Amino acid sequence: MGLIVQKFGGTSVGSVEKILNVAYRVIEEKQRGHDVVVVVSAMGKSTDSLVALAKEITEQPSSREMDMLLTTGEQVTISLLTMALQNKGYDAVSYTGWQAGIETENIHGNARITNIDTAKLKERLNEGKIAVVAGFQGVTAEGEITTLGRGGSDTTAVALAAALKADKCDIYTDVPGVFTTDPRYVKTARKLAGISYDEMLELANLGAGVLHPRAVEFAKNYQVPLEVRSSTEKEAGTLIEEESSMEQNLIVRGIAFEDQITRVTVCGLASGLTTLSTIFTTLAKQNINVDIIIQSVTGTSKTSISFSVKTEDLKRTVEVLEEYKDALDYEQIETENRLAKVSIVGSGMISNPGVAAEMFAVLAEKNIQVKMVSTSEIKVSTVVNEGDMVKAVEALHDAFELSKQTAVI
Amino acid sequence: MGLIVQKFGGTSVGSVEKILNVAYRVIEEKQRGHDVVVVVSAMGKSTDSLVALAKEITEQPSSREMDMLLTTGEQVTISLLTMALQNKGYDAVSYTGWQAGIETENIHGNARITNIDTAKLKERLNEGKIAVVAGFQGVTAEGEITTLGRGGSDTTAVALAAALKADKCDIYTDVPGVFTTDPRYVKTARKLAGISYDEMLELANLGAGVLHPRAVEFAKNYQVPLEVRSSTEKEAGTLIEEESSMEQNLIVRGIAFEDQITRVTVCGLASGLTTLSTIFTTLAKQNINVDIIIQSVTGTSKTSISFSVKTEDLKRTVEVLEEYKDALDYEQIETENRLAKVSIVGSGMISNPGVAAEMFAVLAEKNIQVKMVSTSEIKVSTVVNEGDMVKAVEALHDAFELSKQTAVI
Repeated sequence: MGLIVQKFGGTSVGSVEKILNVAYRVIEEKQRGHDVVVVVSAMGKSTDSLVALAKEITEQPSSREMDMLLTTGEQVTISLLTMALQNKGYDAVSYTGWQAGIETENIHGNARITNIDTAKLKERLNEGKIAVVAGFQGVTAEGEITTLGRGGSDTTAVALAAALKADKCDIYTDVPGVFTTDPRYVKTARKLAGISYDEMLELANLGAGVLHPRAVEFAKNYQVPLEVRSSTEKEAGTLIEEESSMEQNLIVRGIAFEDQITRVTVCGLASGLTTLSTIFTTLAKQNINVDIIIQSVTGTSKTSISFSVKTEDLKRTVEVLEEYKDALDYEQIETENRLAKVSIVGSGMISNPGVAAEMFAVLAEKNIQVKMVSTSEIKVSTVVNEGDMVKAVEALHDAFELSKQTAVI
Repeated sequence: MGLIVQKFGGTSVGSVEKILNVAYRVIEEKQRGHDVVVVVSAMGKSTDSLVALAKEITEQPSSREMDMLLTTGEQVTISLLTMALQNKGYDAVSYTGWQAGIETENIHGNARITNIDTAKLKERLNEGKIAVVAGFQGVTAEGEITTLGRGGSDTTAVALAAALKADKCDIYTDVPGVFTTDPRYVKTARKLAGISYDEMLELANLGAGVLHPRAVEFAKNYQVPLEVRSSTEKEAGTLIEEESSMEQNLIVRGIAFEDQITRVTVCGLASGLTTLSTIFTTLAKQNINVDIIIQSVTGTSKTSISFSVKTEDLKRTVEVLEEYKDALDYEQIETENRLAKVSIVGSGMISNPGVAAEMFAVLAEKNIQVKMVSTSEIKVSTVVNEGDMVKAVEALHDAFELSKQTAVI
């Protein structure tokens, strides 16, 4: 007997048939005696259709009106899922973001949750009802409808679990859990039984794509146990929680990778104290996400700075740099395309200083050139040629023995 | 310089192209210097698609969840129309029912508006903004989303016009105004320049279909001048207001008609005091709308009651009557299908007692048998054979000289 928050993403509710399947997953938990809050996204491609409608009207719709438009998507899903639950004889009730008390900052398109007024939901749960809540959306103090940005429904689920002090937050998705690496590329990839918040954060940030980093951060801050699991299979998924109870002796937990990376080098910069901040503040203001940054000192008064961006952002990046050429005072820009990022992640690295060295050795043995490196306490990222990406992942997966289950929670 | 409420129905906003056209109609009023509030319905067939989705889940969706589902329809339209207005350089802002302060009773599917908190809308209008409001929807004191039932967007527009003390409420539709009779059947049908609330109420109730009776009643109660006009043509429509300023000397203003009427006769009833109320209370409880009622006294202790229903309601009507046969204590039920109702409407009848007689004479001259009659101060309805319907309408339209414009406002 506890309180479970279940979250089902867009693909899990992509059709009436799938919504009926979700209803069964909800009923299962209810039948186990749990109170259940369900958070759902918009049906499959419905968000894309709404975006396409807006684009027919204008290339640059205002973010307030986009929020108004897109939030209808989850509202459709909550009503249909609630009907399905009612049709099976279960007492269920749907809530939009504003009805569920999900308050956000007054920012459209990417608002953060500031507070959740759980009074109404608690009342319904006490009455034995299943509450079905629209993910991704909230309301400002002024009554404006907002959306939470990418991964918003994950965030809604975790935030509700935290606010309601739920025993668990289950994130149902179209994959059975978090893997040591992407099983579409590496056949020996293994589903992890458990992973720490920090490791998941690194993996999420590195593009593993199962869970949005904001949701993981929220879960970590409020110590909400998360489980990532399949919406169609019954097997257990991957539990995400604090370190203590997990497969301790794994140094590397997973390998993330991402192609279509470009390295940009700004050459001949005056090496002043503010050079770095000027460049990256300028790029940040244009919403260009810079990843790995390397500054090389050439020994003269001039310096070079390299950084990696997604290839899709390259055009804008160069435009911004050229626009501010005078202010930034550099000689020229060099770019290298068709790169990829390969990263190993694991809390065990903190106490194992040789992990980065081992990674470089493995890559060298396979004749893979490392073009950039970035490290944190629990990850090492390298940039390699795109053509070497899968080879690098496979070699690292083998070398760190990720296909072997070394301990079970 | 005034405040205009414009309402555009589902067919007027049925596509992106049509929404862009609506934007032009809104901008026209704004350019004339008026403050503008726009009320819109869901796009064309989108409500039908949502209903179909619900039906895939369950044959009997709960009315609360249907409201949750259907209200997304107008929310899509308000955001798209607002984007279109913004794209043309106009400051516009969209509001759902709850955001616009439209409070209703706590009844799902067919709620009545109880209050409108206009503070937010007035603020936006004072800032020079165009407010785009979702029709058909409201919110209860408890924060439940409700819908206003059929013709709901008309009601929203009129109620907003009343609450904001608007100078005028323009109902844009796919016909150019209110006609003396249906121009698809009678070639000489003429668009009326003006009509009184009461006449419009009778016509609306009689199935003229241009405006929902609830909206007309609301407009009458709050003395909101309405204009029914085309959303595609520029010409003036039909003004609906109090009697004073209109074509006074028209005795009959319009002719309404409706096919697929069935007469039901309950024979051999014990003629007690409560017989009538028992029958019609029973039918009302089953949501069967009864129209014309005739009680014939046969001179004995037994009586018969005839009434007309829509043919589509006949099966349920007979089922209900048979279910309550013992309580109602009648001998048998007779039904006659393939009937139609033809009604003449006009305020001038109040002071012209011979109008009904003239109507019967016209019908008799055309060999049209009158099967039932019902009168009010400003209308006479007759039930005739379905095959005689158009002939009756044409003859009456001629006899009362409706194709002639006798006075202009």
